[in-house]
Amino acid sequence: MDKIVRVNMSDLTTSIEVVPPEWAGLGGRALTSTIVAGEVVPTCHPLGENNKLVFAPGLLSGTAAANTGRFSAGAKSPLTGTIKESNAGGLAAQMFARLGIKALIIEGLPKEDKWYSLHVNQDGVSIAEETELIGKGNFAVVETLEQRLGKKVGILTIGPAGEMRMLSANISVKDSDSRLRSHGRGGLGAVMGSKRIKFISIDDHDAPGVKLVDPDKFKAAARTLAKAILDHPGTGQGLPTFGTAEMVNIINAAGSLPTRNFTYGQFEGHEDLSGETMREIIIARGGKPKHGCQPGCIIQCSQVYTDEDGTYVTSGFEYETIETMGANACVGNLDLVARADYIMDDIGVDSIETSVTFGVAMEAGVLPFGDGREVLRILKDEIGTGTPLGRILGSGAGNVGKIYGVTRVPVVKNQAIPAYDPRAIKGIGITYATSPMGADHTAGYTIGHNLMGCGGRIIDPLKKDEQVWLSRHLQTGQISIDSVGLCHFVGFPMEDNPEFVPALIDLLNARFGFDLTPAWIGDIGVAILKTERAFNIGAGFTNKHDRLPEFFREPMLPHNAVWDFTDEEIDEFWNF
Amino acid sequence: MDKIVRVNMSDLTTSIEVVPPEWAGLGGRALTSTIVAGEVVPTCHPLGENNKLVFAPGLLSGTAAANTGRFSAGAKSPLTGTIKESNAGGLAAQMFARLGIKALIIEGLPKEDKWYSLHVNQDGVSIAEETELIGKGNFAVVETLEQRLGKKVGILTIGPAGEMRMLSANISVKDSDSRLRSHGRGGLGAVMGSKRIKFISIDDHDAPGVKLVDPDKFKAAARTLAKAILDHPGTGQGLPTFGTAEMVNIINAAGSLPTRNFTYGQFEGHEDLSGETMREIIIARGGKPKHGCQPGCIIQCSQVYTDEDGTYVTSGFEYETIETMGANACVGNLDLVARADYIMDDIGVDSIETSVTFGVAMEAGVLPFGDGREVLRILKDEIGTGTPLGRILGSGAGNVGKIYGVTRVPVVKNQAIPAYDPRAIKGIGITYATSPMGADHTAGYTIGHNLMGCGGRIIDPLKKDEQVWLSRHLQTGQISIDSVGLCHFVGFPMEDNPEFVPALIDLLNARFGFDLTPAWIGDIGVAILKTERAFNIGAGFTNKHDRLPEFFREPMLPHNAVWDFTDEEIDEFWNF
Repeated sequence: MDKIVRVNMSDLTTSIEVVPPEWAGLGGRALTSTIVAGEVVPTCHPLGENNKLVFAPGLLSGTAAANTGRFSAGAKSPLTGTIKESNAGGLAAQMFARLGIKALIIEGLPKEDKWYSLHVNQDGVSIAEETELIGKGNFAVVETLEQRLGKKVGILTIGPAGEMRMLSANISVKDSDSRLRSHGRGGLGAVMGSKRIKFISIDDHDAPGVKLVDPDKFKAAARTLAKAILDHPGTGQGLPTFGTAEMVNIINAAGSLPTRNFTYGQFEGHEDLSGETMREIIIARGGKPKHGCQPGCIIQCSQVYTDEDGTYVTSGFEYETIETMGANACVGNLDLVARADYIMDDIGVDSIETSVTFGVAMEAGVLPFGDGREVLRILKDEIGTGTPLGRILGSGAGNVGKIYGVTRVPVVKNQAIPAYDPRAIKGIGITYATSPMGADHTAGYTIGHNLMGCGGRIIDPLKKDEQVWLSRHLQTGQISIDSVGLCHFVGFPMEDNPEFVPALIDLLNARFGFDLTPAWIGDIGVAILKTERAFNIGAGFTNKHDRLPEFFREPMLPHNAVWDFTDEEIDEFWNF
Repeated sequence: MDKIVRVNMSDLTTSIEVVPPEWAGLGGRALTSTIVAGEVVPTCHPLGENNKLVFAPGLLSGTAAANTGRFSAGAKSPLTGTIKESNAGGLAAQMFARLGIKALIIEGLPKEDKWYSLHVNQDGVSIAEETELIGKGNFAVVETLEQRLGKKVGILTIGPAGEMRMLSANISVKDSDSRLRSHGRGGLGAVMGSKRIKFISIDDHDAPGVKLVDPDKFKAAARTLAKAILDHPGTGQGLPTFGTAEMVNIINAAGSLPTRNFTYGQFEGHEDLSGETMREIIIARGGKPKHGCQPGCIIQCSQVYTDEDGTYVTSGFEYETIETMGANACVGNLDLVARADYIMDDIGVDSIETSVTFGVAMEAGVLPFGDGREVLRILKDEIGTGTPLGRILGSGAGNVGKIYGVTRVPVVKNQAIPAYDPRAIKGIGITYATSPMGADHTAGYTIGHNLMGCGGRIIDPLKKDEQVWLSRHLQTGQISIDSVGLCHFVGFPMEDNPEFVPALIDLLNARFGFDLTPAWIGDIGVAILKTERAFNIGAGFTNKHDRLPEFFREPMLPHNAVWDFTDEEIDEFWNF
């Protein structure tokens, strides 16, 4: 029997609850957003006792279906003030699902000035005081916990940034190589830090595992789904070969590669940062060009990046980090960006928010554009230790803009805009503007349709036509993906292969005995998008917050593209 | 003929315009808010080229009517994101009025990395490049400009904080003793800094002066108004004797004296900070216990505070600064608070915002509560020079809360709550919540009615009854006061002396040949309040922003008072 596990940090009690019928058909983002919207007062202080931190595996997590191991974390975000869901790979989703835990809800704040850990296993969840690991980086947490609890332990952890309640703090998840994946965006690590939880360990020993109502049907549908993923050129060839860094050259060619704090759309040194270069480097140094973020991944877009001596530097080294640190902050050196990625993982900050923050700090004159050595120093010695400068940079791009009086601040709802300039790829700009999450490329990733013919044709990235429709179509679709526990990138075969959606519906029906039809994809997307929007309205957000920063009206080379949507055109997004 | 003077910093041009008929009956706040609401896009970046900085004297400024020399500054606030009007004493209002300048509107941003000054005289306004005074404190600006332009020059200036576009930066106004009064709230100094204007000098030599349509009627009405001010115990006795610091003991007795970052309502050391103590000290040391902030002031609530050697320390030393630094940050020593006040004036930061910010920083552990020496050091060496810590503290209480993850952050619309805890004086809490300016005691000062029988009876400060009505009544009335150029404190005789309003209307009619009736007071108040609110709605504000911070639900000693208004009760404010 699936269950809800609840932790009250105010009185240090835990409980196990029956899954309410209205939550039975929900998982991942659909479930975290439903719980946060239902139980959290939208106007509460995100770091106060009335916020709740919710974790939920996807509906299909724990099964043998490919790429279904994404784990959702949700809360009111201290960075944006909106509802927030951020999902990650790693081991946690599969372990939670096998333990029958549909959601872990953490509420309240401890009364004493102490730190705690949670331990999740077959019996539910327990709370213990923690002292040894306080102040430690995420890699040390993983190493120590594997010594304490064995190699197989699952881990969710925050670094010093989360302990210090920095607004860019993330929550890291151990992967199968004892490395880290991240619930990166929106400062959820600060919420975990406010609740004084350093880590959550997971033991799925003797877990009941996931029961399938119709195993044969499930197996057949899983095969179809896997084939659709492997047959698609994006998920079957591009991503496994070059990782997400394949986008560097593509986005540079499109003139949408944010450069020098979103001043230009192309970066001279883009070749040095590209997926092609990265692959050559990794192969030459004996790293791993392919790697999965979760067990059961058949795309393998991750990698293990090593230094010249073959020593591990980082993994889960994504395009958005490479771009925002490499081109936007002009640190055009993959080795330096990789080192920065490692430190960001270790101290526990969102690598997108932080890299974009460096671009704003460089514009403010805090350090020169392109000074990668100083970036590394600041990450380690300032942000990692919470000096005043570190506190500033750890609070995200929007706050750095406020503190230094900068006007070129690429944020929406105070969250940093990732590695696609919306002037030259307008569909993604609609996603940035309207997503209830703040600026988030994954919320409705239009790049495939705008540049690569996903969906059967190109929707001209430089024109406004159809972009609102496109973003809405993808935002609702993405919610279904994030709720099932599927990887973001299945969006490509989902759009292009007519067998994908029926197979996905078959999987859900075969797993749970549901009676869903393909209409579920749109239905759950619309329902959850409206739930999330309603939370934000309750928190004080209006259509006036669905806007890109003013500076995007400045023309950007090479296309002299401007952000030219009217308010009315953007607001049309919510007309459904 | 009155005129509008306009400066475009983008192309460094100036122009003189005829007063549009719809602005003819407006002055002070009514005019700055009308211009900002009419000409500034509400969603613009407050430090970007689309914001405008507007200065306007009151309707009666420049006349012989008592206490009519307040000067209004308006813009979109970089601190709050709302429309903002902040008014100050000093010489500027009288000089502008005598020059026939109804408003100075500064728009655009310079293209070059240079600093400028403006010079206002009979011919209008001119722009000059400035180098010598860049980086200098406000007192040095005044001293140098008096050498350059003569003792009689009028001055508006920003300190280093404004140059650095800090969100708590104010705009200072020279008074008749060559000392400073401030447009304190809302970071308007950062707007002036964004436009790269270090100072505005004013020369009213050979100014045409103010013409009265009916001098005899004016004279008679002015006499009635002055008598009403002098006859009232508040403006005629309390304020001239003890200054605004008379409130220390009164608010402490009411249990509403914010102490230790709004944790308690009474401060043990309140006697040491009181107006009574201040008067004794000033007299013993040979300072001035009475002083006017503007020529023509008959209340004289200001003072000149000296050190033990009789050397000038500060003036314009107000209750709200004394309270928030003295009791709320626990620096229970009037000499230290006076020194802090001087430095804040010199570097150019709002002394309320900054003092409340120190309370939050102390809660965050940046420095110990009560460490006045460290306050002085941080003000001078960190905020004044823009170190990272200085940048943080210069960005105001709300941002310090975000950067250090503090939940007890006394702000509304990101502006610091001044020296009256709203749990124990509930009327002022309605003003904080609903004023379009963010938390601002002057916007609708209920203290007289809640504690001192102003209006003929006490409206119980601990009960919710009538507070919404009271705040609305006072907020609309205050707009009329702020538009005429009258001092805030005439609100007392205005409420208590039936001769006051007819005399005020007579003054306006006799000055301009208007045909106003006493209904004007309410009409202008309602109209401007709605104009300001509409701007804020356009900027994305909703009733969800008309809320006090969550922590005011915690009971506060000595009354165990809580902030217990429901959302619906607060929202009733706008039901008119």
